[in-house]
Amino acid sequence: MKAAYYEGNKKFSVGESPIVPPGPGQVRMEVAYCGICGTDLHIFLGHMDHRLTPPQVVGHEASGTIVEVGEGVTDFKVGDHVVLRPTDACGNCPTCARGDINVCPTVNFIGITSPGGFQGSWTVPAHLLHKLPDSINMVHAALVEPMAVAAHDVRFGEVKSGDYCVVIGAGPIGVLEALVCQEKGAKVVVSEVNPARVALAKELGFEVVNPSETDLVKYVMDATGGDGADVVFEVTGSQAGAEMMTKLPRTHGRIVIVAIFAEPKMVDLRTILWREYTVVGARNYVKQDFDEAIRLVAEADMPLDKIVSDIRPIARVQETFEQIASGSANFMKVLISAKED
Amino acid sequence: MKAAYYEGNKKFSVGESPIVPPGPGQVRMEVAYCGICGTDLHIFLGHMDHRLTPPQVVGHEASGTIVEVGEGVTDFKVGDHVVLRPTDACGNCPTCARGDINVCPTVNFIGITSPGGFQGSWTVPAHLLHKLPDSINMVHAALVEPMAVAAHDVRFGEVKSGDYCVVIGAGPIGVLEALVCQEKGAKVVVSEVNPARVALAKELGFEVVNPSETDLVKYVMDATGGDGADVVFEVTGSQAGAEMMTKLPRTHGRIVIVAIFAEPKMVDLRTILWREYTVVGARNYVKQDFDEAIRLVAEADMPLDKIVSDIRPIARVQETFEQIASGSANFMKVLISAKED
Repeated sequence: MKAAYYEGNKKFSVGESPIVPPGPGQVRMEVAYCGICGTDLHIFLGHMDHRLTPPQVVGHEASGTIVEVGEGVTDFKVGDHVVLRPTDACGNCPTCARGDINVCPTVNFIGITSPGGFQGSWTVPAHLLHKLPDSINMVHAALVEPMAVAAHDVRFGEVKSGDYCVVIGAGPIGVLEALVCQEKGAKVVVSEVNPARVALAKELGFEVVNPSETDLVKYVMDATGGDGADVVFEVTGSQAGAEMMTKLPRTHGRIVIVAIFAEPKMVDLRTILWREYTVVGARNYVKQDFDEAIRLVAEADMPLDKIVSDIRPIARVQETFEQIASGSANFMKVLISAKED
Repeated sequence: MKAAYYEGNKKFSVGESPIVPPGPGQVRMEVAYCGICGTDLHIFLGHMDHRLTPPQVVGHEASGTIVEVGEGVTDFKVGDHVVLRPTDACGNCPTCARGDINVCPTVNFIGITSPGGFQGSWTVPAHLLHKLPDSINMVHAALVEPMAVAAHDVRFGEVKSGDYCVVIGAGPIGVLEALVCQEKGAKVVVSEVNPARVALAKELGFEVVNPSETDLVKYVMDATGGDGADVVFEVTGSQAGAEMMTKLPRTHGRIVIVAIFAEPKMVDLRTILWREYTVVGARNYVKQDFDEAIRLVAEADMPLDKIVSDIRPIARVQETFEQIASGSANFMKVLISAKED
């Protein structure tokens, strides 16, 4: 089986996927599909070289089947369909003691700080696995990890039935957040400027506003009787998003920071005070978010096929990252098929 | 009895305090003391002229005694010692329907949008009054309103016993927040650059760090075993404060925005995400905060006399505001005595 190795300097090579026998507490899985995340693009572009040791297999949105079980592993068996929660916390720091393992300062993010899922054979810690229902579609299962991000974000947004939510930025995470909000019974408006993403968000059935064409603040205020949105998700990482996020919520509304802002932005702290907003950062996920994501993927009847733009073999990883980086293709989510060499 | 009228253009005049008979639901009180708030300074400097109708009596931190009771008022009687919660919400908007009356978009802030307490006789709505214990010191009672701000802020900070709190900015509200945090059993560090305020904060018994002399981030990390503060209060409204506030909290820590930022500031949203902070705006107070503030002022044995820098007659209002505006006197809190003409 093959593996895609990040070599540094915007280069992947294709090599063999080593068959690493599982040690105690580990399992070896055969990867079915592994999605390309925005973080993988950052890796490709060299932004995260300080956290990697090239040549290194990356990727962390994988679905697969257990083919070998290490000593002491009792919760899983050969043949189980699984997904990996790729954040392995230290377990010893004050953050872990509080149970907030997703923000452990020295977390090992598998697929970044250790080998990832763009390969056919992947040996991983069993304690990070989640068993899937046998019926699950393995293509959809590769969306569990980003769905868990969305589930975590929506949980931190405290979204409830009847809420009016605005998602600023209709990339893969924004779109999944919008779907999760809808599943909670909330009304969702998606804000997006990229025409291809506007089109896809509409195809997914969302109400979409392009804020470069329509006054989004007026739109939201008109729709809420002048009150404002209950919850706003900032998923762009842009100055425009940082400005918009404080204009939309109602008094005591919530703003969820989801995007990774590369540098500080101008923020209207006065309005955060004046309207007593709650601004929360939401990063990664914990176990309950993965459980919720599996439920959503398996049962919620979401239009997940429309989110998967393409499925490609490992041999096409380099070409695919180049297309994503250049914006020459309008992908939402591309999966790498680890079985097709 | 006298009244101090804001005339506009950094000018107060002294005139008569009109005896306004209380209408239905109103009472007339004789004001004992009324504190000068930072908001009053903003009024003096002309920053809030759009919300006032000069000549107008301002001031909203008053203690007093009821001398006349209007029709239908049954909860209060002549002789009662009272303080006024000066925020009269509309009662009809979605914000009020949610009970968040302190952030009602059309709140009547008595002392800003209607006549205030820098006068001997003050006729006010009875439904905004809080009865004081007879034993209360009326000088201390004039601190109930700012104490309610502090109680509200500390409540929004979810401060609990054993927490490590940092208050950035040791003005009157910062100092009161620090006292309230201590009363909850929290450990408090106060950050302040003004030498006179550093000295007063030390006199009040606080651990004080001057961040222009000492590395505050290192100080807090050393004191918390590298974890960070549980709660940070930003009470400066400065760019330096906006930068410092995201450097101090532990993962899942809370930042309470208390200062009114005149314009947007650069904020490190990435760290808010990365460490999953909760940032909350805290403005004014609601009934329970006033109840708590009365308890604190009456029973908590705080060094309140040290916070009152001076007590002056209405005739000295102009001089006092000029001193505060120029920084020529190092006041913490100045009270205006309404009984001394």
